[in-house]
Amino acid sequence: MSEDKKSLSEVRERIDAIDRQIQELISERARRAKEIAKVKGEGLPAIDYYRPEREAHVLRMVVDRNQGPLSDAEMVRLFREIMSSCLAQEQPLKVGYLGPEGTFSEQAVHKHFGHAAYGLPLGSIEEVFQEVAAGHADFGVVPVENSGQGMIQVTLDMFLTSDARICGEIELRVHQCLLSQSGRLEDVRRVFAHAQSLQQCKTWLRVNLPEAERSAVSSNAEAARLARHTDDAAAIAGETAGKVYGLKVIARGIEDRADNTTRFLVIGRSLFPPSGNDRTSLLITVNDKPGALYDVLSPFARHGVSMNRIESRPAHTGKWQYAFFIDVSGHIEDPPLQAALRDMGALAAQVRVLGSYPVALP
Amino acid sequence: MSEDKKSLSEVRERIDAIDRQIQELISERARRAKEIAKVKGEGLPAIDYYRPEREAHVLRMVVDRNQGPLSDAEMVRLFREIMSSCLAQEQPLKVGYLGPEGTFSEQAVHKHFGHAAYGLPLGSIEEVFQEVAAGHADFGVVPVENSGQGMIQVTLDMFLTSDARICGEIELRVHQCLLSQSGRLEDVRRVFAHAQSLQQCKTWLRVNLPEAERSAVSSNAEAARLARHTDDAAAIAGETAGKVYGLKVIARGIEDRADNTTRFLVIGRSLFPPSGNDRTSLLITVNDKPGALYDVLSPFARHGVSMNRIESRPAHTGKWQYAFFIDVSGHIEDPPLQAALRDMGALAAQVRVLGSYPVALP
Repeated sequence: MSEDKKSLSEVRERIDAIDRQIQELISERARRAKEIAKVKGEGLPAIDYYRPEREAHVLRMVVDRNQGPLSDAEMVRLFREIMSSCLAQEQPLKVGYLGPEGTFSEQAVHKHFGHAAYGLPLGSIEEVFQEVAAGHADFGVVPVENSGQGMIQVTLDMFLTSDARICGEIELRVHQCLLSQSGRLEDVRRVFAHAQSLQQCKTWLRVNLPEAERSAVSSNAEAARLARHTDDAAAIAGETAGKVYGLKVIARGIEDRADNTTRFLVIGRSLFPPSGNDRTSLLITVNDKPGALYDVLSPFARHGVSMNRIESRPAHTGKWQYAFFIDVSGHIEDPPLQAALRDMGALAAQVRVLGSYPVALP
Repeated sequence: MSEDKKSLSEVRERIDAIDRQIQELISERARRAKEIAKVKGEGLPAIDYYRPEREAHVLRMVVDRNQGPLSDAEMVRLFREIMSSCLAQEQPLKVGYLGPEGTFSEQAVHKHFGHAAYGLPLGSIEEVFQEVAAGHADFGVVPVENSGQGMIQVTLDMFLTSDARICGEIELRVHQCLLSQSGRLEDVRRVFAHAQSLQQCKTWLRVNLPEAERSAVSSNAEAARLARHTDDAAAIAGETAGKVYGLKVIARGIEDRADNTTRFLVIGRSLFPPSGNDRTSLLITVNDKPGALYDVLSPFARHGVSMNRIESRPAHTGKWQYAFFIDVSGHIEDPPLQAALRDMGALAAQVRVLGSYPVALP
């Protein structure tokens, strides 16, 4: 015991020394960030020297270097917060999002901009676009895709009439697990979960637990708590909840859509340079004649640009036109993408670059 | 410009080098934290090696060392997050609070435990106490005092019947300012604010702006936005909002209660050793006879223990008894406090130590 105490105090002394060094380095980093701000001009708001491509680059280096024991996601989170504090020294970034506080959208804001940014809860997705356009918010964060519900149409439609530029993307992932005390599927007679999670995992439950009774409770955390005290019950919840409640994982990723992710876009007023691993979102309008879409996409294949997503919407601009939202790999400054867009100009009624931005980090 | 670009890239290279060092140090810190965990036993949940007194001590050193440019609060926030990530490596701490998500209580949880802790939104203050008692939550965070409404009685009453121990306190401060474009009081004809803020600043407004029209809007952020575009309007909002919206401060701290702070208690199941700057909460029951309270308090004065707060409640234990919640400076292991409590034993019907815990950090 006294041996333990001795080694404990030695480790603590070492940690104190580490903390001293970390603090010195963070302070120097903050001073250097101020120097960068000064190059751009004294006393300017953060938006004038915020470089999303630089942040993405820094965070990718963090991931590349990371050898644990902290996970990549935790280490990225800490560096996000350090950068967020350094950036907020003059005037914090203000980021509009679909309120109220406590929503996934707010989580997305702070995952991307850190907690030193100023989140501005707004009443609707339209309002987020308006506040960014008017300059009242530096950026906006809007949901654009939910693996359960697909693309969020109101967000896409806003791009038809607004000049907003896409400056980033954020992914929030929630993997559902089936958890229980024993970790054995054959013991499960009842499944506790929030009603929405029961719904999300319907197919898996029907196939794997057709006889089990389903009980909707107030949250998945509550479900995990209940499952902890019964031999024949399981809970649907995230893996963290399982860890927290000491439950074993019976099955992972049991949601009907394999990847339960909500994707958000960061919208702003300008385009940013390449970060080294980027995605480009395009809005392409074509006249409605047979083969038009196929033709218009051919330059991508020809120039080796890979498409990640495509979604069509009736364009509000003309009666016989369709608009396509297309995500491709690469930055608008990359030569293959430039060549493809040049070729495309002759084929489409309109090609608009909504933005080139760093691919989402973990 | 190319001179600027050169110096910009030099500064960025220096920042990259700093980041490399910070990351190495954080990783080593995480490894050392694991060593400490191992001294206590392999694979134990965080609660078994979480030391609030050690955390408070570390953070006080951070404040003492801090020479800017980051504020003490920002630097403390970053170290909280680093400690939070290091602690959460095995199993994150689970902290119950009065839900839903997005409330001040949730903010208090993450201000104190960092964002790697697992917040558990619960339905009531009673439930927070129950979940902590049952061991489903490691700690609970409950509001205990609001400078507008005074002590929160339901929280105090829970201590009469529960064995909960107080392990920490958290303060969230909100200072209201009157903000406008010109920063001149004489220009103000209208005041925008959330209804609650108008209420909180009633006295100041009556004295200083008796003629001004008051308009309740959806949030103080909204108020600041509106005030930005009118010459004769002011907004009530925090100083950050003023910075964000480029408004000037007409007056600070205009709320009727000078210090608009909500104080929270961290409740747990055990007492912790001294951190070097502590507070002790006591529950003292006295029989209802003239002078009983005065007598029972005299040992504090005699032994030089200073009282910070006192609040009386009818005790549910006996018909003619009163319970007093008393906060004093110091830790229960401090000799003067021990002496005072020894003397007090003869005078009070009951003296219970609710907890000795580090004084709240900025």
